[in-house]
Amino acid sequence: MAKETSFTRADGRATNELRPVRITRGFTTNPAGSVLVEFGNTRVMCTASVEFGVPRFKKDSGEGWLTAEYSMLPSATHERMPRESMRGKVKGRTHEISRLVGRALRAAVDLTELGENTIAIDCDVLQADGGTRTAAITGAYVALADALAYLQKEGVVPGHPLRKPVAAVSVGIIDGVACLDLPYEEDSRADVDMNVVMTEEGRFVEIQGTGEHSEFTREELNDMLALAEEGLQQLIAVQKAVLKESLD
Amino acid sequence: MAKETSFTRADGRATNELRPVRITRGFTTNPAGSVLVEFGNTRVMCTASVEFGVPRFKKDSGEGWLTAEYSMLPSATHERMPRESMRGKVKGRTHEISRLVGRALRAAVDLTELGENTIAIDCDVLQADGGTRTAAITGAYVALADALAYLQKEGVVPGHPLRKPVAAVSVGIIDGVACLDLPYEEDSRADVDMNVVMTEEGRFVEIQGTGEHSEFTREELNDMLALAEEGLQQLIAVQKAVLKESLD
Amino acid sequence: MAKETSFTRADGRATNELRPVRITRGFTTNPAGSVLVEFGNTRVMCTASVEFGVPRFKKDSGEGWLTAEYSMLPSATHERMPRESMRGKVKGRTHEISRLVGRALRAAVDLTELGENTIAIDCDVLQADGGTRTAAITGAYVALADALAYLQKEGVVPGHPLRKPVAAVSVGIIDGVACLDLPYEEDSRADVDMNVVMTEEGRFVEIQGTGEHSEFTREELNDMLALAEEGLQQLIAVQKAVLKESLD
Amino acid sequence: MAKETSFTRADGRATNELRPVRITRGFTTNPAGSVLVEFGNTRVMCTASVEFGVPRFKKDSGEGWLTAEYSMLPSATHERMPRESMRGKVKGRTHEISRLVGRALRAAVDLTELGENTIAIDCDVLQADGGTRTAAITGAYVALADALAYLQKEGVVPGHPLRKPVAAVSVGIIDGVACLDLPYEEDSRADVDMNVVMTEEGRFVEIQGTGEHSEFTREELNDMLALAEEGLQQLIAVQKAVLKESLD
Amino acid sequence: MAKETSFTRADGRATNELRPVRITRGFTTNPAGSVLVEFGNTRVMCTASVEFGVPRFKKDSGEGWLTAEYSMLPSATHERMPRESMRGKVKGRTHEISRLVGRALRAAVDLTELGENTIAIDCDVLQADGGTRTAAITGAYVALADALAYLQKEGVVPGHPLRKPVAAVSVGIIDGVACLDLPYEEDSRADVDMNVVMTEEGRFVEIQGTGEHSEFTREELNDMLALAEEGLQQLIAVQKAVLKESLD
Amino acid sequence: MAKETSFTRADGRATNELRPVRITRGFTTNPAGSVLVEFGNTRVMCTASVEFGVPRFKKDSGEGWLTAEYSMLPSATHERMPRESMRGKVKGRTHEISRLVGRALRAAVDLTELGENTIAIDCDVLQADGGTRTAAITGAYVALADALAYLQKEGVVPGHPLRKPVAAVSVGIIDGVACLDLPYEEDSRADVDMNVVMTEEGRFVEIQGTGEHSEFTREELNDMLALAEEGLQQLIAVQKAVLKESLD
Repeated sequence: MAKETSFTRADGRATNELRPVRITRGFTTNPAGSVLVEFGNTRVMCTASVEFGVPRFKKDSGEGWLTAEYSMLPSATHERMPRESMRGKVKGRTHEISRLVGRALRAAVDLTELGENTIAIDCDVLQADGGTRTAAITGAYVALADALAYLQKEGVVPGHPLRKPVAAVSVGIIDGVACLDLPYEEDSRADVDMNVVMTEEGRFVEIQGTGEHSEFTREELNDMLALAEEGLQQLIAVQKAVLKESLD
Repeated sequence: MAKETSFTRADGRATNELRPVRITRGFTTNPAGSVLVEFGNTRVMCTASVEFGVPRFKKDSGEGWLTAEYSMLPSATHERMPRESMRGKVKGRTHEISRLVGRALRAAVDLTELGENTIAIDCDVLQADGGTRTAAITGAYVALADALAYLQKEGVVPGHPLRKPVAAVSVGIIDGVACLDLPYEEDSRADVDMNVVMTEEGRFVEIQGTGEHSEFTREELNDMLALAEEGLQQLIAVQKAVLKESLD
Repeated sequence: MAKETSFTRADGRATNELRPVRITRGFTTNPAGSVLVEFGNTRVMCTASVEFGVPRFKKDSGEGWLTAEYSMLPSATHERMPRESMRGKVKGRTHEISRLVGRALRAAVDLTELGENTIAIDCDVLQADGGTRTAAITGAYVALADALAYLQKEGVVPGHPLRKPVAAVSVGIIDGVACLDLPYEEDSRADVDMNVVMTEEGRFVEIQGTGEHSEFTREELNDMLALAEEGLQQLIAVQKAVLKESLD
Repeated sequence: MAKETSFTRADGRATNELRPVRITRGFTTNPAGSVLVEFGNTRVMCTASVEFGVPRFKKDSGEGWLTAEYSMLPSATHERMPRESMRGKVKGRTHEISRLVGRALRAAVDLTELGENTIAIDCDVLQADGGTRTAAITGAYVALADALAYLQKEGVVPGHPLRKPVAAVSVGIIDGVACLDLPYEEDSRADVDMNVVMTEEGRFVEIQGTGEHSEFTREELNDMLALAEEGLQQLIAVQKAVLKESLD
Repeated sequence: MAKETSFTRADGRATNELRPVRITRGFTTNPAGSVLVEFGNTRVMCTASVEFGVPRFKKDSGEGWLTAEYSMLPSATHERMPRESMRGKVKGRTHEISRLVGRALRAAVDLTELGENTIAIDCDVLQADGGTRTAAITGAYVALADALAYLQKEGVVPGHPLRKPVAAVSVGIIDGVACLDLPYEEDSRADVDMNVVMTEEGRFVEIQGTGEHSEFTREELNDMLALAEEGLQQLIAVQKAVLKESLD
Repeated sequence: MAKETSFTRADGRATNELRPVRITRGFTTNPAGSVLVEFGNTRVMCTASVEFGVPRFKKDSGEGWLTAEYSMLPSATHERMPRESMRGKVKGRTHEISRLVGRALRAAVDLTELGENTIAIDCDVLQADGGTRTAAITGAYVALADALAYLQKEGVVPGHPLRKPVAAVSVGIIDGVACLDLPYEEDSRADVDMNVVMTEEGRFVEIQGTGEHSEFTREELNDMLALAEEGLQQLIAVQKAVLKESLD
């Protein structure tokens, strides 16, 4: 990929460089876990709440469950978007991302250790600048960790359900060059857009790659996965560092 | 009201004392105006966005319009509440407050000076501890001011639509004592609950008083209005102070 | 208010004069209580039905509950309005009024005397000419009284849940003059519009005042409340007179 | 049908006898036509309103259109029914009857004489005791006649769109005996239930016969049609008599 | 009906001639009964599934229930129609037909022999060319028969709930001539359109006749019923022949 | 992957073997293109219809658009599923797949050659046995090809919008072994589930891999992609073969 040398990103980052990442624990006080996660200008409030009992399909299984809902505030985007509650319908995109977040976070929790409790993850985007779903997953892991610690201390949760960190990042191909962690400006003109969810052990939880404006080869896929793996190890390091601090 | 001397509020405030008020301008960057307002632990993100054109009933009137939507994030309350977009229905309470916010803010804007533009106010409660609607109105005025300043500078808005400050506060009667600015704990057991919206000139935009658990006399009404007027002048002073600072 | 002398209302009434009020009991026969209430040309059918059991939040409380739904027939207004059931959405205004009616009528019933029963109040506007919500509350009290008498006789309701009468009236400021009981023509051009719900003892259940086209002073508020109190005592007299007559 | 002699109806009517029919014109004043129709204890408010323009599929056809909506107030039935607007869904039964009323009334209007206007028929059941759809059609014809007379006088409608009367009645088979105009008590236990819509000339607009609890033979069909024709001529006579009276 | 001699149908059929009818059992394998029914170019997939338990109004009655849902695939018609699930609303026509199919099929099953089970009939129109509801009923009987045979064999259903065949056909009057089994082209210009549901014994389950573009006389009704009876006997013969074949 | 030798699939296929694939063109006659596609027992009806004009965001772009809707008939699955139109809500899974099908098929059409027309793809699952979304994409390409050929012949479409074939297949890891084209029984217990959409040139349009019950390594990803590529070339060969036959 000789092109890469001559390629310059709008914000001056290297192609394998994340935007500044910040995770603020204890962002609000009512939920069991509450985090503000920032990937550059993208800001998502991630919370984890507990609900007693489980959905019908898990009844009497002895296991818990985890659900997730993702949503954008109407003023999060450059142009204000109509509020989904007022339209009376949830958009397909919102459903799709909520389901992705749920699958990703379920990989971070051992449902048998949870008892018959349900963890509800809420990811509400306050400000959107690309990568909202990957920021949501990365932040939600920290909210989940805080919630589970609290619930264990309270005796609500019987076992040790938290598994190793799970994080997510976007990669894409812009003007033929693979780039890590796309802001909106890059995302909207990327030829290919991929989201990768990975555990600390380097195992994939989810890979979603889409040729929005053109298709991609096996080689390009490999380039993108390499970038993603590099970025994800950094994100997981941030998650672990932030979780080491005491919350009081 | 001799009782008042022996009455102690849970947070130690005097009956005529506001909770700490903080208004942060430029809280997010995409909307024309964006504010985080805090009344104690109540935190509301208030934004003002512009939409070109006006609703049908204002078409060709030469005037603009202002709408407002209020909503609570599902994790804003102590117990997580179901997300209205997922239920497919907006609750009556949400509708009621959205309409109140809209009427209150329309009192702060001269629609004839706005041109045929619509201002969309969004008030999203991040954390709820009583008084969310009054915090929303108070914060939204500042977001509106910022948005109108921006829109005038950009030449979108032809005139000078911003009118004098409008703020709102709650008052109530608890154990027979009139109190200002009720947190959730007080609000839920208040005999009477009243929200007052007022302009800087001391004129009422809206008064809503409800005897939730018992009715109230003309004298109690007067006590509550006196407290409200006192608190509102302080809130308006905060609005004006914060708007004097330059934003950049 | 010297202006008042020179002010003439379209229908020739004095500023402190109610429109002709008529309450017809036994308007329909299926509900436990059924009333047609008329404030001039405004006509509302108010019914009270009993439902066994209570909503979840009252379960096992030993107390009953009261809910209310307000609605306008599509042909009630001068211009036909779309039917809410066909739109699939209830308008914010409808929600707001339903909630007001519910709060007002709950002040007229002792829930502990009701047993675990739910009273459902329905107020359907057959013809609208201003003041539909205040007529609804005033009429619904009579329907409630009839329903409770019937339910006590049938042994459904264990105690004596009916409390003293509750009535409601609108007041407003038109061309600077406070007026009682506004018809549509006055309501739509009033500077200020206020609805007052009061008990026979003269205690307020609810006060909602809105500066639709301009704000109002403390003095104007006092003028309006004085008119409202005067009108409400007359309305309560009508309620009591009508309830004295035997029904069959 | 020898059985008929020994058969007694709960309300003492002969098998070929209608319940008392009353049609009150000018029941409300806002719609162009407004009628209260009573078939015994069944009471339906029928209105006809005009809307300028036509639905898309009639655009530029030079013809008008007629739509109809039928609905039951929640307190119309013995047991209160949930309000369709609150459920967010219209029941299949309601849709089915609205469509029937529309087809029936379109047979009473010459759409080419109407100009590009739409007549909206609303039939709201205030009290239900069987035969609500047939009462609705019968009353709506009178509301339609009044509305069209008004619209012609106002010059809104260019031609003479009103056609000959259309009325509707129910018939059924109860304990093997054909009966005319079933109240709720009979309707709910009838073996066969049929609704017949007919013009003054004795031509059928619609026939809907359902074997609810058992099927019916060709002979039973003929018996029912004979009863229906007899009843319909009487209903049409009432419509014509009532329309002869001057309204004011 | 002397006219009939000179009348020619577009597809050359005699006025009393059905389109080619084909019923394919075992069309899909998951439901207990699955049939593809074809009336000429009209093709409907009819399935019968079992659900344990009964709706609330049948609880503890010892009887079963049968429900039906009819729907058109969006691409079934000449012009693609919007998908009802995406619109969020079911059309009145769909509701009306679903209800008709349910009533018709309930006449073919003895609910007391079914035990507390619910049969769900689904009729999905793959290709529409008139008569979809009559094809649906005719095919659904065969699916129901297969499902009940299977459920008896499996011991799910305690008794012998299947009753004699029920079939349905459309008749209409086109250019003054009564015709059997109308394709779309005839249906859309028919003066009168009638659907007849009948049992093998020649008893009517349902008759629905509508004068779409003009009304009809008693004589015309008789002509149509005669044609329908003739066609229905042929359809029932097809049902019986097809059910005689072994399914393996 | 030494394990592979000892692994046996329930239907006896080799791990790199597709189920029998059948594509039937001209399955129904109303849409411009209509195909029944079968992957083993999975059967999907795929149609392509044209709608004149384009959605708002494409207005005056000179380009066309393609949308897709995926849906399952309620009786397609082993246990009948509630109909989405009756629930009033589309499930997240349905939205997610509809969006995937749309993106996949847009890769097969040059929107600039389409003119301002919209192609609506409908994929309705008649029988589900795993891989419904991949069968849908594979079949929809053929329906699209037929529709575009027809529209070019009719002069509706100005250019040559059809691009090279696009097909889709599922792969997964079962008991540690990568397998191609999973039926429901395998899909529901697979550790990893991946859907791959590819063009004839071997370029990826979309890759979606999910670790449902455990995560997957880079090596396992490579194994799955190799299987997918092999299967996709076979599916594209079927598409091309079937499109070579004349349709009449």
